[in-house]
Amino acid sequence: MKAVCLLSGGLDSTTCLALARKEGYECYALSFDYGQRHHFELQAASRVAQSLGAVEHRVVRVDLRALGGSALTAEIDVPKHNHVSELAPGIPITYVPARNTVFLSLALGYAEVLAAEHIFIGVNAIDYSGYPDCRPEFIEAFERMANLATKAGVEGTARVRIETPLLRLTKLQIVKLAAELGVDFALTSSCYDPQESGRPCGGCDSCLLRRKGFAEAGLTDPLEYVTP
Amino acid sequence: MKAVCLLSGGLDSTTCLALARKEGYECYALSFDYGQRHHFELQAASRVAQSLGAVEHRVVRVDLRALGGSALTAEIDVPKHNHVSELAPGIPITYVPARNTVFLSLALGYAEVLAAEHIFIGVNAIDYSGYPDCRPEFIEAFERMANLATKAGVEGTARVRIETPLLRLTKLQIVKLAAELGVDFALTSSCYDPQESGRPCGGCDSCLLRRKGFAEAGLTDPLEYVTP
Repeated sequence: MKAVCLLSGGLDSTTCLALARKEGYECYALSFDYGQRHHFELQAASRVAQSLGAVEHRVVRVDLRALGGSALTAEIDVPKHNHVSELAPGIPITYVPARNTVFLSLALGYAEVLAAEHIFIGVNAIDYSGYPDCRPEFIEAFERMANLATKAGVEGTARVRIETPLLRLTKLQIVKLAAELGVDFALTSSCYDPQESGRPCGGCDSCLLRRKGFAEAGLTDPLEYVTP
Repeated sequence: MKAVCLLSGGLDSTTCLALARKEGYECYALSFDYGQRHHFELQAASRVAQSLGAVEHRVVRVDLRALGGSALTAEIDVPKHNHVSELAPGIPITYVPARNTVFLSLALGYAEVLAAEHIFIGVNAIDYSGYPDCRPEFIEAFERMANLATKAGVEGTARVRIETPLLRLTKLQIVKLAAELGVDFALTSSCYDPQESGRPCGGCDSCLLRRKGFAEAGLTDPLEYVTP
């Protein structure tokens, strides 16, 4: 069975890909060069796709920078904190308007070309940054729309399913699952604001959530953070 | 009131923009450089946006060619016919997988950045090519999903509406409406396979539907087709 697997190169999407592979899917990994400041993640994605045996890894360019409105794509500083308890409530400035909608839409087009009926996305609605497009109700609505959007949907020959195996897992559970699946954590990159070399800052929302997961799981994260 | 208006530079999207302008919207025109063979349409879109007084015209690059699967973005010939009655039943090879889903998703991101609550798209489910993502049930499902995807949707501060004023008009009605709105037809470009100069082929689905509209309306299309 073919599956399109959205892959940022971070912990969640990597675990998601590892899970899809374990379940026997032929995985077509899909990443986006969207003008993200943490462009380094595309290198991580490429290494991860290879290490997990994806059939192929495609990188699609989509210029979200042209729309602006986010610390990840515009000249706005990424907020830093010392501890995960300091994360501000509400939707943070690192939210990229409609990003998952755009990514899932492109995955849908790719799935249609491949005749793949499964799209894996590593969204998580427990230990996450509060992005609206990570919530289960969004995913359900997207899947419903997707089945009206495509040729196969109209002809009734196939159904697309949006697979979200991490949706209700904590970061702790994700780290444990990844370890069980044999994920090489050193290949992944989660930081929103890494150094040129890819070294993670340690203080952005994404780093803090990742570090919390490793700490709670009692595992050592092989990445060397700038902020200890 | 702000509106994002999807603008290909063709007859339908131009009429849609003219209508939004007439209704008093501040229009932010949005076009896509998606690897289309009829890249000329972006020049048309730019001229149309200016002539209709859009606040701005943004062109976002999204590489749909990387996904393939369509005569509009891959090395597949665009089918040509002599008359609109010859159009093949079913979904044609010019269908671009998930194109409107991708375009509306990017429009959604732009609307979120602008705090615009209206997205205009010139889809039409009467005289059209049979694309799944032009149907009313698709548009409704997209709107529902869109209101779960965004910050404003989550916070309950705003609702996005997908405006489709041409949805149930025939090509004849669209041509008449455009004429009433004072659209300069010479600025528009509908052809899927134009010459370098932009001169339309006259035989692709899009040319045939356009010509049918003008013929039925008893109006002269100022464009000079290669096939008479």
